[in-house]
Amino acid sequence: MTSVAPAYQDLYQRHQRLHRLGHLQAIAQWDQAANMPCRGNEARSQALAEMGGLLHQLATEPALPGLLARAAAEPLDAAQQANLREMKRSWRAANALPQPLVEAKSLAISRCEHAWRTQRPANDWVGYLVNLREVVRLTRQEAQCLAEGTGLSLYDALLDQYEPGMRSAALEALFGDLRQWLPGLIRDVQARQAAEHTQLPQGPFAKTAQCALGADAMRLMGFDFEAGRLDESAHPFCGGVPEDVRMTTRYAADNFLAALMGTIHETGHGRYEQNLPRDWLGQPLAQARSMGVHESQSLSFEMQIGSHPAFASLLKPLLVKHLGDQPAFEVGNLHRLLTRVISGHIRVEADEVTYPAHIILRYEIERALIEGEIECEDIPALWDAKMQELLGIDTRGNFQDGCMQDVHWGAGLFGYFPCYTLGAMYAAQWFAAMRRSLPDLDARLAAGDLEPVFGWLRENIWCQGSRWETAELVQRASGEPLNPAHFKAHLMGRYLG
Amino acid sequence: MTSVAPAYQDLYQRHQRLHRLGHLQAIAQWDQAANMPCRGNEARSQALAEMGGLLHQLATEPALPGLLARAAAEPLDAAQQANLREMKRSWRAANALPQPLVEAKSLAISRCEHAWRTQRPANDWVGYLVNLREVVRLTRQEAQCLAEGTGLSLYDALLDQYEPGMRSAALEALFGDLRQWLPGLIRDVQARQAAEHTQLPQGPFAKTAQCALGADAMRLMGFDFEAGRLDESAHPFCGGVPEDVRMTTRYAADNFLAALMGTIHETGHGRYEQNLPRDWLGQPLAQARSMGVHESQSLSFEMQIGSHPAFASLLKPLLVKHLGDQPAFEVGNLHRLLTRVISGHIRVEADEVTYPAHIILRYEIERALIEGEIECEDIPALWDAKMQELLGIDTRGNFQDGCMQDVHWGAGLFGYFPCYTLGAMYAAQWFAAMRRSLPDLDARLAAGDLEPVFGWLRENIWCQGSRWETAELVQRASGEPLNPAHFKAHLMGRYLG
Repeated sequence: MTSVAPAYQDLYQRHQRLHRLGHLQAIAQWDQAANMPCRGNEARSQALAEMGGLLHQLATEPALPGLLARAAAEPLDAAQQANLREMKRSWRAANALPQPLVEAKSLAISRCEHAWRTQRPANDWVGYLVNLREVVRLTRQEAQCLAEGTGLSLYDALLDQYEPGMRSAALEALFGDLRQWLPGLIRDVQARQAAEHTQLPQGPFAKTAQCALGADAMRLMGFDFEAGRLDESAHPFCGGVPEDVRMTTRYAADNFLAALMGTIHETGHGRYEQNLPRDWLGQPLAQARSMGVHESQSLSFEMQIGSHPAFASLLKPLLVKHLGDQPAFEVGNLHRLLTRVISGHIRVEADEVTYPAHIILRYEIERALIEGEIECEDIPALWDAKMQELLGIDTRGNFQDGCMQDVHWGAGLFGYFPCYTLGAMYAAQWFAAMRRSLPDLDARLAAGDLEPVFGWLRENIWCQGSRWETAELVQRASGEPLNPAHFKAHLMGRYLG
Repeated sequence: MTSVAPAYQDLYQRHQRLHRLGHLQAIAQWDQAANMPCRGNEARSQALAEMGGLLHQLATEPALPGLLARAAAEPLDAAQQANLREMKRSWRAANALPQPLVEAKSLAISRCEHAWRTQRPANDWVGYLVNLREVVRLTRQEAQCLAEGTGLSLYDALLDQYEPGMRSAALEALFGDLRQWLPGLIRDVQARQAAEHTQLPQGPFAKTAQCALGADAMRLMGFDFEAGRLDESAHPFCGGVPEDVRMTTRYAADNFLAALMGTIHETGHGRYEQNLPRDWLGQPLAQARSMGVHESQSLSFEMQIGSHPAFASLLKPLLVKHLGDQPAFEVGNLHRLLTRVISGHIRVEADEVTYPAHIILRYEIERALIEGEIECEDIPALWDAKMQELLGIDTRGNFQDGCMQDVHWGAGLFGYFPCYTLGAMYAAQWFAAMRRSLPDLDARLAAGDLEPVFGWLRENIWCQGSRWETAELVQRASGEPLNPAHFKAHLMGRYLG
């Protein structure tokens, strides 16, 4: 191949190099969150900034456009062509933004995030607004740059970074439909659950016991501990590299279920990474397809499996082993605990039924904001109105549990929120497809056998990496384009069935 | 300064960059030893090799010789001149060896070390010899290259990498003297200790208790946990970066003292790193002076303080707190445990009295080997004779606990062993100087106050970094050149006094 495709081969080697250096960056970032003592932060930040600059330099070397053009004329097989397509995508992403804008946004984000840490507890919207305006101003410029290269609208240009191929026109249809039936479903489910008696677990639960429980749950979900770890950090995440996945969680003495289900959620991300196509590791083709597809894996684990009636029976022996038995661990009660629907202020604490309401609200606001239809000062009123409309919650004056609760906007992440609900929709669609090809799926789950799920995901999602564009991956895996009816059917069946 | 010393300023920035990228390398290496799951090793090794190549490339850029020459003519203050001197040293070290030799040695070492892991337990000297010959052949070539640039003898060229300024002529005098009185001292001490009754601690000791004990001992020794950590690894070491020191230890259920004193040893290394001149971090001037000076810090902690009669009283409450009380923890008995002298086969298990015998033996063999006076096949007979002569131990036929016990030679580390005993000599000299300037030192130690020691080391050694050549550092800190009489006086006083 070296002789017939020298440009492709050159690009291949450059991406292997980026992967190797990116490995050190990923481990250092994980370490910063999981291990690093406080006084190490300045040196670590400088080291990571140096590496970030180096990786950006390597991703924007002047030789790349010529190599990409020449490689396109070389005889490549289908997988190599797909890899070249993803190489071009990653080149465009790295080259779209002028360096002064990257630096200005980095500074603005850093200032906004830093101040947010104290402004949020102080409910200081006015202070936050000053910094947020600057982040939005620069993000609109960023969107302009990205749009110029791609012909997309401003918001779509941002969205495409996280969910390649997704457009707001499609989101309008998906979320518009959801918006129609979701508030009614939430009311119906809550009315039904109000009649049930659910016993709460009695803590406290020792951290060591919770750690051991989390590790056992990861084993149940098939995590490979020879190629990854579970540690603790202030904000749970799944980091590291596909060859060595670093998951983190956090523990609360009075609420073991939050850490446990958070761990199961991250395990879905972790197994996707651990099962990306090994022969292609280091190449863009071996990367996870999109944020939405990634989230579909964590939600397949946490929600599709976690809320399945069979799951409480699988979980109970682990709880008894690590926490001792108690009435709340009775299987029926445990299932009720895992499927409780509560309308709350906070997105990250939401169940799978109310979660999309938090996303629709954020999507509608951020799209209008980026497109210039509204300004930052309009956010609170819109937030209050939409929370009332979608969840029946009064948020007036409560900025800290309202529009200041998430770090995303302050961090310049616009276009990211929709991926959470796209992930929930994809996950429901995967399970619908699974049930068509494995009619005995629920019986096997009820018998404690999760392998059919893992096998299907491995074959249809994990091993595919970025081989296909998202829409084609969805079509190949499930036999149809993204179809929100599966998500509706899942929620209706599980919560009102 | 930018305007008057542009070449120096350019070099300064390049070293900051090396420091930042080296930070990521150091953390990834620590992680590899302390955290990494087994299947992550291949990707990690590739990532570290990529970074090693990058750092070597940056350290050998063609612009450097010109910059170094121009900087020498710029108006620099004394500290900047010292920094430039160390920049030149580091440039010479990186440029001395032709790339093919570096790669050939790297391969030979890797093969030798890998095979050694199974050859040592199998006592397979003949198999080991094949690989060791190749490592020695390439190390002699390496010494030749280093010698050409510096005019040193082959062995001195290697020694100078670890202990800049030290020469084998000086070692012959230092070790020749030691060789005269050490075997007699060992016999006398052992005869005296044979008459004492020492009670051994009764285990097992739980790992969690040993961890907490180790952390408390590190606090006692002044380690800054806001700028470092203690973790576990198969081979204890002190890694990380000065801003974030990563120490490791290993635990044995039946022998808590080995882990504890190992931890105290590494804490000496750790505090040196944590207290290097902060304003200069990132520059060669801020690096530890030499391997011998580094070892003088760990031995100041483990041996000078650890074997001090006052130390058992400081340690006892920590033992009782974490392990419960037992007769062996009685202060007098504890001091006897901390000062037991036992002639054994294994260097890393040796006490401070027999340790130099292990070093003299290795030094004599490796010097002759590198200078071509002997060949690898001569090692076992020399080893046996010298072990008999120095420690009265019969090692014939026992290669695994003889000349195959250390990884150094197989790893191509010739010229490193002397630093251990130079460190012991420096440490004794520091304490002699301390007692001259602080006549009440022993009274303060007896009162449980270790701060005078830390203060002296901070001011005279830690904060000096590489500001001075080693000989000048020794002169400035202690008022005289390296003087082995202090080490002799320390051993005589402590073990026969």
